[in-house]
This record gives sequence, structure tokens and C-alpha cells, in this order.
Amino acid sequence: MNDGGKMRLKSDCIPCFFKQASIVANILNSDDATKLELYKGISKIIFERADINQTPAYLATQIHEFIKEFYENPDPFKDLKKLSNDRMLSFYDDFIKIIRESKDHLKSTIILSTIGNLIDYSLYRSVELDEIKNKFVSFNAAIFDYEKIKNVLTKGEKILFVTDNCGEIVLDKLLIELFYRKGKKVIVVAKEKPILNDATVEDVKYVGIDKFAKVIGIGNGQVGTPYPSGNPIFDRAVETADIIISKGQANFETLYELKRPICFLFVVKCQSVASFLNVTESSPIIMMK
Amino acid sequence: MNDGGKMRLKSDCIPCFFKQASIVANILNSDDATKLELYKGISKIIFERADINQTPAYLATQIHEFIKEFYENPDPFKDLKKLSNDRMLSFYDDFIKIIRESKDHLKSTIILSTIGNLIDYSLYRSVELDEIKNKFVSFNAAIFDYEKIKNVLTKGEKILFVTDNCGEIVLDKLLIELFYRKGKKVIVVAKEKPILNDATVEDVKYVGIDKFAKVIGIGNGQVGTPYPSGNPIFDRAVETADIIISKGQANFETLYELKRPICFLFVVKCQSVASFLNVTESSPIIMMK
Repeated sequence: MNDGGKMRLKSDCIPCFFKQASIVANILNSDDATKLELYKGISKIIFERADINQTPAYLATQIHEFIKEFYENPDPFKDLKKLSNDRMLSFYDDFIKIIRESKDHLKSTIILSTIGNLIDYSLYRSVELDEIKNKFVSFNAAIFDYEKIKNVLTKGEKILFVTDNCGEIVLDKLLIELFYRKGKKVIVVAKEKPILNDATVEDVKYVGIDKFAKVIGIGNGQVGTPYPSGNPIFDRAVETADIIISKGQANFETLYELKRPICFLFVVKCQSVASFLNVTESSPIIMMK
Repeated sequence: MNDGGKMRLKSDCIPCFFKQASIVANILNSDDATKLELYKGISKIIFERADINQTPAYLATQIHEFIKEFYENPDPFKDLKKLSNDRMLSFYDDFIKIIRESKDHLKSTIILSTIGNLIDYSLYRSVELDEIKNKFVSFNAAIFDYEKIKNVLTKGEKILFVTDNCGEIVLDKLLIELFYRKGKKVIVVAKEKPILNDATVEDVKYVGIDKFAKVIGIGNGQVGTPYPSGNPIFDRAVETADIIISKGQANFETLYELKRPICFLFVVKCQSVASFLNVTESSPIIMMK
């Protein structure tokens, strides 16, 4: 791993911010002149605030804040998020069946939760059950610390679970339900305010995670999870958890330097993170740090 | 064709400017921190100067001016340009053979000159003769106004030829040599100062075009060819030429609105121009306007 183990803004992040903005503009059916104005605003933020000492998520938050202001729309992904949650909820019993029919329930559930992050790629089309089943059967993580994770999970009582995207949270629910049935205490973290297609507290409750865990919301709609967060419940949970489970790449970027037992489940979504981890892009990662 | 026939800055041009800058940074072996600083400077220009009423080439010029200043290097493509010219010159006799063996010499030579613009894609690897031969055999233009062009060329005496890239100019030389042998008067236009991998007056002379034509240099290292150019010989040649031959996409962007008999030979290099012409990206264009 490069750069003394720090995940910092890279030049490749810059074109990616425009790609993210383009996705929002397309969702909102912007005409090209409006989209160019949006890009000009983003250029201003990059010029004034891009900082090689910060995580990519730090600048991404400022850019997405601007995008929301630009469109006067606090939640451009609202409809897509509901669609995504509903679609995955309709498969919940099938997911349970996949796990029950597998040899190692914990392992299968961790894999499904990681696959949940993979389908974030496919946000703008319907993700079908067959696709998830195929990804499950052919699953091959570039980093696969399962035995280490199992060991910490088996001994531990207190689990802090940091969610990522809508849709994905339904596959996280499988893991949270498994922990609940094993008698663990789980705190689930979601966003207080909307950002991208990230799960909010409302979303997490909508998919029924609150039946199995305490749910807390953090932040002001930031990308990833900066720590300390300013939320005393979350910050205390970080200090006292036996294991933290962090979903998604932005949480990896922001929580990677945390000196706590932490398990990262995500799919590598850009070349910068791929180089950082010395894996290929699109690789699933199941990593204990 | 959209927008009343005007080729103007599109939102898609913005990510493309960063791609172009990235190519220069890679040629000059920049480290990532330097590349990020370069991107910040480009972001400032985009924020301050992106203008939907101008051509993409107009903003591209300002960005490439900045890149040259940033690196304190007036000609980052110098070595690659020489390499490209030398490589194509080594095939010159083979190109002549292809033309002689073809049924319609004028048509074959126009096609080879257009293919010259296609190999600009492959600037950073060696382009081989076999590749050009294959492209010649399978050549298929999305717009192919050959009969119209032939008609104007046959009647006309004065030809103004606006060049594009190094390497490509060797294939243009075939066409200019053909005109010369038919007794036409040809004025060839190249850049006065370096910009990207565009041919300068020096390059055009290096490949021996001055044996068959008068060569003039214009501008201060701009992308494409704004008109009026400020150069009285060029501006007069535009007014008096029986036909203008314009190579490459940036010249298309900047000369498209000219009210003169003009033939555009180029390969479509982005989605914005593809949409504008209602063709697919990477299409070769042989268009009389």
C-alpha cells in the first residue's frame, strides 16, 4: 500500500467528480447549457478547495452540497433510492434461501452484503435476482480475510455497522439479522441527511433494519464517514465496539486510518483505490484491518 | 444538424479537457501532486472562461496555453511529433504504390489523407504500414461527398489546404503532390507556433510539402483555425481559393461556419461532434460544404 497507508485525493478523482455530477444532471433531465453551468460551479470548487491532504470523500461532499444547492433539490436520488430499496426487499426471502442452502451461513451473508455494494454500479437499471445469484456463485474477492473476521465476530458482542447505499442496505439487513439472532448488540449507522444514494435513517428503518438493531444518524449529508463525527453516540460506539463493519468505498476512504478493529466490505470503484490496495478495479474486498 | 449549424462548447467538452491535460502530464512524467495542481489551474480557466457561445477549440486553446506555461515548456509534444513524421515518411513510397495500384487516384489519395487523421488516436504508439493498409481497404466514411469534391477540385485552380497533426501531414503531402502534378496552385497552412501535436510550418517543410506548395504559418499556437486569422495572406487565400481543404476536428469546429467552398476531411473524435453531425463516434468524414 502506498503513501504510508493514507487514502488521499488523486488527480484521477477530478474527472470522476464531473462523472458523478453528470449522473445527477441526467437524473434531473438537465439541458446541456445547465449542465455546463453546473460543471463551471464544480470547477470553481476544485480550483479553490482541492487538497491533496484530504480524502477524496472530503471534496466529494463539498461538490455534492453544491450540486444540491445548484438544483435547489436536497435529495436528487429520492425516487431511485425508493425503487432500489423496494426491488431488493422483494427478493429478501430468496436471499434468506440462498444463505440457508449454503454451507457457511456467516460467510454467505458477508458475501451477499458485499455483493450489495457491487450493485451500486447498476443504480439506473433494475437489478434482478438472477444477477445477484450469479455474482454469489462466481464470487471472488481480491482481499478475503474471512477467517480473521469470523474470529473477531465470534468473540465480540458489540458491533457497529456503517451502511452505504440504498438497495444495498437490504442485503446488509441479512447480516444484521444474523447478528441479532446470535445475540449480538448491533448499532447501525446511516446518514442524517440525504447525500447521493446513501441510506438515510429513514431508509434503514423503511427496510426494517430497526427490528434487529439500534439505528443512529450522523452528519450533515457528507460523503463517507469522517471520524470523529461530532455525534457522541457514534463516536462512543466507535471506541467501544468489538468490531466495526464499514460498507462501501467512501467509508473505506474516510475510516481507513481508524485504529480500531474494522472490517471493510466493498467493491473497488476507481483506479485510485485499486492502485492503493494493489488490486484490479471492480474487485470485491472483504478486509479486516 | 442541431443548433442552427453552430458547433459550440458542450458540457462533454469539460471532462475531455482534463483527458487532454492528462496526456500532456503523462508525456512529461508528472507526479500525481503536480497533475492535481495542473487540474486545479484548468478548473480555474473553465470556471472563469467556459462560454457556450464559443467553439470548444476556443477554450481548448486557453487551456493548452496554460498547460505550456504551467510546465514552462512551449512544445511538450516536440519529440513525439518528430517520431510521428519520421515514421510516416518511411512509408511514403508504399503510400504512392497504394495510390498507383488503385482505380481512382484522387479518391484513394483523399481517403489516405483522411486516414491520416484517424491515426492521431494512436499518437503514443508506433503506427505501422499494415494498419494504414487495413484502414484503407476497409474504409467507410459516414459522410462521403466525393463526387461533389471531385467536381470542385477539377474546375478549381487555387486550393487552400489547412493541415492538422504531425504524421498526418505526410499523408496530406500525397494529396498536395497530386494537386501540384495536375498544375493547381496550393497554399498550405500550418501553425506558426506549437500547439498540441499540430504541424508547424517547420514540420510541414520537414516532410517536404514546400516542394509542391506555398507554405504559410498562422496564429499564436491556437487550437483549430479561427477566421479571420489576422494573417493577411491566409485571410486573402480564404476569400480567393476555389476550394479550401480543412483537416481534423478542431479545424472543422472553427471553420464550419465559413461561407466558402470547403471540404472537411477528418475523423470524429468525440460524442459532441458525433451528435452534431448525426453520425457515430470514430466515423471518418469526407464532407463538402
